[in-house]
Amino acid sequence: MHVELGTRSYPILIGAGLIARAELFREHLKARDVLIVSDTTVAPLYLGSLKASLGGKRIVEVILPDGEAHKTLPNVSRVLDILVANRFARDCAILALGGGVIGDLAGFVAACYQRGVNFVQVPTTLLAQVDSAVGGKTGVNHPGGKNLIGAFHQPVLVVSDTQTLATLPARELRAGLAEVIKYGLIFDAAFFAWLEAHLEQLLTADREALTHVIRRSCEIKAAIVGRDERELAERALLNLGHTFGHALESATSYKEYLHGEAVGAGLVMAAAMSRECAFLAPEAYERVHRLIERAGLPTRARSVTPDAAFEHMRIDKKVLGGRLRFVLLRGIGEAFVTADYPAPALSRTLAAHCGGVS
Amino acid sequence: MHVELGTRSYPILIGAGLIARAELFREHLKARDVLIVSDTTVAPLYLGSLKASLGGKRIVEVILPDGEAHKTLPNVSRVLDILVANRFARDCAILALGGGVIGDLAGFVAACYQRGVNFVQVPTTLLAQVDSAVGGKTGVNHPGGKNLIGAFHQPVLVVSDTQTLATLPARELRAGLAEVIKYGLIFDAAFFAWLEAHLEQLLTADREALTHVIRRSCEIKAAIVGRDERELAERALLNLGHTFGHALESATSYKEYLHGEAVGAGLVMAAAMSRECAFLAPEAYERVHRLIERAGLPTRARSVTPDAAFEHMRIDKKVLGGRLRFVLLRGIGEAFVTADYPAPALSRTLAAHCGGVS
Repeated sequence: MHVELGTRSYPILIGAGLIARAELFREHLKARDVLIVSDTTVAPLYLGSLKASLGGKRIVEVILPDGEAHKTLPNVSRVLDILVANRFARDCAILALGGGVIGDLAGFVAACYQRGVNFVQVPTTLLAQVDSAVGGKTGVNHPGGKNLIGAFHQPVLVVSDTQTLATLPARELRAGLAEVIKYGLIFDAAFFAWLEAHLEQLLTADREALTHVIRRSCEIKAAIVGRDERELAERALLNLGHTFGHALESATSYKEYLHGEAVGAGLVMAAAMSRECAFLAPEAYERVHRLIERAGLPTRARSVTPDAAFEHMRIDKKVLGGRLRFVLLRGIGEAFVTADYPAPALSRTLAAHCGGVS
Repeated sequence: MHVELGTRSYPILIGAGLIARAELFREHLKARDVLIVSDTTVAPLYLGSLKASLGGKRIVEVILPDGEAHKTLPNVSRVLDILVANRFARDCAILALGGGVIGDLAGFVAACYQRGVNFVQVPTTLLAQVDSAVGGKTGVNHPGGKNLIGAFHQPVLVVSDTQTLATLPARELRAGLAEVIKYGLIFDAAFFAWLEAHLEQLLTADREALTHVIRRSCEIKAAIVGRDERELAERALLNLGHTFGHALESATSYKEYLHGEAVGAGLVMAAAMSRECAFLAPEAYERVHRLIERAGLPTRARSVTPDAAFEHMRIDKKVLGGRLRFVLLRGIGEAFVTADYPAPALSRTLAAHCGGVS
């Protein structure tokens, strides 16, 4: 598979055991100096195998602590220091081995170091394989909001080794499914129906079902990114559920929810708000709610009050001219962006899906 | 004047008293929220007038200490904190009022905040007006090297008020002339000859001569950037003198030389190395040396040893595949990039132009 972006097009390789296939890296990764960025969870599992596949190159590694709380500017600075200390030049490559946190952070480092060096994604979570590793969004969190600091910087290569999903904790697998469900909701009602029919296989990490899901998700995302790399229009649809989700993550200091879990709740909220606005039929809302629930994802945010959620939404990137924009649904497979909604629809949505724990 | 970059083209306005012309900003700057970044030297002179011209907008200001030593990632982080604290959204603009340091740092903030917001340059030094404010290179220094952290991010507007040059210290004016001389050396032998003939007017800040120089410099730079925004080829020629110059700045911790002064010495070194390689005639080298000297710029770096200069060059961005690339001269107005030179030519150049103070 390819993401088509003119001179910056790049391949997405999907398959079992790809990390161990040295010839893939020999063919697609020409840099002599490679900085591998990984985390304390993933590195013990796959770093050895990856390094063996990169034999002959000069490799430096940085292992960061695992988790969204570490996706920060100080950690970017730390990785930059290591690049400079090792005298990496503009023709080096930075390789992210891990989930979305590692990919976003390492990608931002690659975007900034010497005004941009080659970047390779080796995503090891379902969420990263279906979403964050594809499309060139990079960045880190600010204490005031999610992904507030970042850049668009496309990878030169994405290697999605489906075998890594065998070691993925069930909670992470479910979190990844939130983004998969999102693609169905935005663009592809048939894919959504397929997910309804095959959820059990996915939850037991059936490799064939997962491979189908990764491929279809990447196809949808690559097509959109190819048409609107910088999110001037259509790409914004990919933020379905994310205005709510980011607020939940930010309000809980990135400690309570995995990103995909917050997106899961966010998808339910986006569907609920669409129903409140009378854009979406109640039955369609119920299908969204049920699939998210069956996927073992949260459908409400008990520990975040409606007011806290609203406050954290206001600094979100989707604010324009002082007014929050939302991606909403007209039906399963049909999303649109709007800043034109009755204020009570938002407050009722938050009241119904936030809070409840004192 | 316009820099032609498709949908990202932008105007460069050059003239006396432009900062005070509110209608220019009304026409070209649509953002409601504007963060002005300036420094302790420039802000007292022009911030009041600029703010008057931006009447009706919500303005937040950040005044950084003056000088290259403050072009750092921690200061970027500080400005980002202010943007978040003031809840600036993606439709805000960041405006740099100052010299190259302020423009580079504020531009990098604009590149990173929410993955890119609008950026306006109001350069107040000759160097920024002829060079750094045009072309979209942004970034900050790392203790290990100059501009090692950065991004390409074009401004939406450049306002070069030539009246600001009336308050520019003579030392800063001379530093700016180094970049002007560079344009002649790279592309335009007739412009170089014009500079030889009119240097005295320039040194006394004759407004007509300076306006000519700013316009011609921007024309040359805009044409090159329009053809090669990301420095994949031709744009690299603009680095003439900069591999040497950056090393001198870095070796002296950005404290001894203004950027333009280091570039002045760097131009002499690039010409000397070109002569050592027998690319450049001795008489042409002498013309370069004499014009730099007449401009009151250093022609050698007394406090940096040849070894220290070499060591600091090795981390420069122009290193590829372990070999330093240089922009050299075949004649006045004719530059080229090469990694193919006899090593003794470099060591003889450094030996002749570095050191001398114990």
